[in-house]
Amino acid sequence: MKKIKLTVIPGDGIGSEVMPHALDILDVIGEIHGGLDFEYEHFDYGCDYYLKHGKMMADDGMEHLAESDSILLGAVGDASKVPDHISLWGLLLKIRQEFELAINVRPAKVFRGIDSPLSAPEDFDLVVVRENSEGEYSSVGGRMYRGDDEIAIQNNVFSKRATKQAMEYAFKLSAGRSHHVTSATKSNGIFHAMPFWDEVFSETSAQYEGIRTSQQHIDALAASLVTHPQRYDTIVASNLFGDILTDIGAAIMGSIGIAPSANLNLNDKSPSMFEPVHGSAPDIAGRGIANPIGQIWTVKMLLDHHGEEEMGSMLLNTMESVTADGILTPDVGGGASTDEVAGEVIKRLKR
Amino acid sequence: MKKIKLTVIPGDGIGSEVMPHALDILDVIGEIHGGLDFEYEHFDYGCDYYLKHGKMMADDGMEHLAESDSILLGAVGDASKVPDHISLWGLLLKIRQEFELAINVRPAKVFRGIDSPLSAPEDFDLVVVRENSEGEYSSVGGRMYRGDDEIAIQNNVFSKRATKQAMEYAFKLSAGRSHHVTSATKSNGIFHAMPFWDEVFSETSAQYEGIRTSQQHIDALAASLVTHPQRYDTIVASNLFGDILTDIGAAIMGSIGIAPSANLNLNDKSPSMFEPVHGSAPDIAGRGIANPIGQIWTVKMLLDHHGEEEMGSMLLNTMESVTADGILTPDVGGGASTDEVAGEVIKRLKR
Ligand SMILES: CC(C)[C@H](C(=O)O)[C@@H](O)C(=O)O
Ligand SMILES: CC(C)[C@H](C(=O)O)[C@@H](O)C(=O)O
Repeated sequence: MKKIKLTVIPGDGIGSEVMPHALDILDVIGEIHGGLDFEYEHFDYGCDYYLKHGKMMADDGMEHLAESDSILLGAVGDASKVPDHISLWGLLLKIRQEFELAINVRPAKVFRGIDSPLSAPEDFDLVVVRENSEGEYSSVGGRMYRGDDEIAIQNNVFSKRATKQAMEYAFKLSAGRSHHVTSATKSNGIFHAMPFWDEVFSETSAQYEGIRTSQQHIDALAASLVTHPQRYDTIVASNLFGDILTDIGAAIMGSIGIAPSANLNLNDKSPSMFEPVHGSAPDIAGRGIANPIGQIWTVKMLLDHHGEEEMGSMLLNTMESVTADGILTPDVGGGASTDEVAGEVIKRLKR
Repeated sequence: MKKIKLTVIPGDGIGSEVMPHALDILDVIGEIHGGLDFEYEHFDYGCDYYLKHGKMMADDGMEHLAESDSILLGAVGDASKVPDHISLWGLLLKIRQEFELAINVRPAKVFRGIDSPLSAPEDFDLVVVRENSEGEYSSVGGRMYRGDDEIAIQNNVFSKRATKQAMEYAFKLSAGRSHHVTSATKSNGIFHAMPFWDEVFSETSAQYEGIRTSQQHIDALAASLVTHPQRYDTIVASNLFGDILTDIGAAIMGSIGIAPSANLNLNDKSPSMFEPVHGSAPDIAGRGIANPIGQIWTVKMLLDHHGEEEMGSMLLNTMESVTADGILTPDVGGGASTDEVAGEVIKRLKR
């Protein structure tokens, strides 16, 4: 029996509405597989935890998390309770940075049965490899002067090591896809960091024969994702650019509620973390209509990560059979509830 | 006779293909108006100039530019000749920053006759007010160590003065539109600069009664522009976020070749500058198929800026009558050349 120890952090808002379904599905997968057992440890870290304890996680939180094989996260943040930069830097971004989850892999593709806002999204199937530990997400900097003279300085920090690691991952991933890596840059406007990014990209690409490369400034690339989404296969991007591009990718799929992500530690020193791209969506929380597909798709990525690709594919196909039959939450034009969509996935898995 | 002294910098690539048409149109407008005369001074600054002189503009270039009432720019940059960060920081960004062209106004709307890649872009009509002089576009920072240990530090600099100025401009602009300002933020991920941005936004909004406000993180906002473009009226954004959002806006209009922009100096110390959102497009340069609409639309913005709103509206209507009749360049699905589209605008203006 293969045991996989999971830490579960449902988090805020719709996070706690979609998470239970992901765990139910894992249990069903375990049964179907026969030799796979998931063990869960639950943590109630999030904004409500902060209101009670004055911090986003327990002092020994990171040590607890470190003991698990993987982390399953729902969503973090609710600005009506805790300022976003406090809640995110105290939990989500803390985990990403302290565990060196240096790579964030985010696939996007047309899903049968889900309408894209684009009139012709055919053949849209891409993956964004996002540098996940540094760059524009940095707490280096500060503020000075008060009143009318105040300035805020924000330091973006790019290291050769992390930049190269993300790029190498993208090249390897693309070798199993369409052999085309696009680098998201902005070396015309961002003076130090992006010319550096370009240099590392051309150095890295020289190591990978047979992979076509292109590079595009983030503004043009974001626009071109809308006008020509089928041009892209694997995109490698900085932390912020990857953040933006993957939300656009999710929009093209039809809803931010569908997209999954895997935050990977590449040297096996820490658990990797799986979370949907969507946020806690306070506006629809508590209404039972959150799309569970994003969170369920993270289960597929978790299965793949633990070497259970066959189970992962089965789950993806089942999800797509459900959407193809029009069983959809309101964000993608349907009338089904979170429970109905997830329940249908489970029912079909059991067949 | 009202004289308007213009500096003309066609720049690189398609810049020099679309610019002559803009000037012809200005001449025609001058004739129609009867009391309006445009005087031009031409400068050949750009990447070819750099190859000859080792700099992007003459040493006294800024002084010359300072003497004009407004600057009309085509496009700058051709990475096959000069690295982008050199060419842009030596000309376009230099002018924006040294002349304190602190506001970049960029409208986007559905144009009759031009298909959007979105299946339902109805009622899409927004304007982005982009902070244009600081933020992520800064030359502060540098690189350290060599080889595998190299790091690049990029300092984003946000001042209360410039941030507030952009926001106030957005609120005033929105008062003549739908009374709704959306702030593009990322205060959950960008630790110092964006919480500061949010504070200035809420301080500013308190000064403007009767204007609805909302704020959205740049990732969600970029996605939502694709899924719900009609939700937006006036967006205020930092330099980089404005850059990205306006390219997405242009994509939704149907082509980056249509969108115009006005770089405004608000204290009348320097000339303002008008340029299309598109770049020099080396891939299609020299083929006579560049879309002249973006550059022509900048002429409308220039006319408005100099108090000639009636002429500006006439020009916009004429442009739209041409696109509505399907006289379009290939980027928007037509078969017409740059000359044909621009020629048709001139012909109809003369009627
Ligand atoms: C060419 C480049 C530096 C410029 C920018 O990033 O501002 C362009 O994209 C724009 O939007 O005017
Ligand atoms: C919540 C936020 C800090 C986070 C990010 O910006 O990384 C989210 O947008 C994401 O994409 O995972």
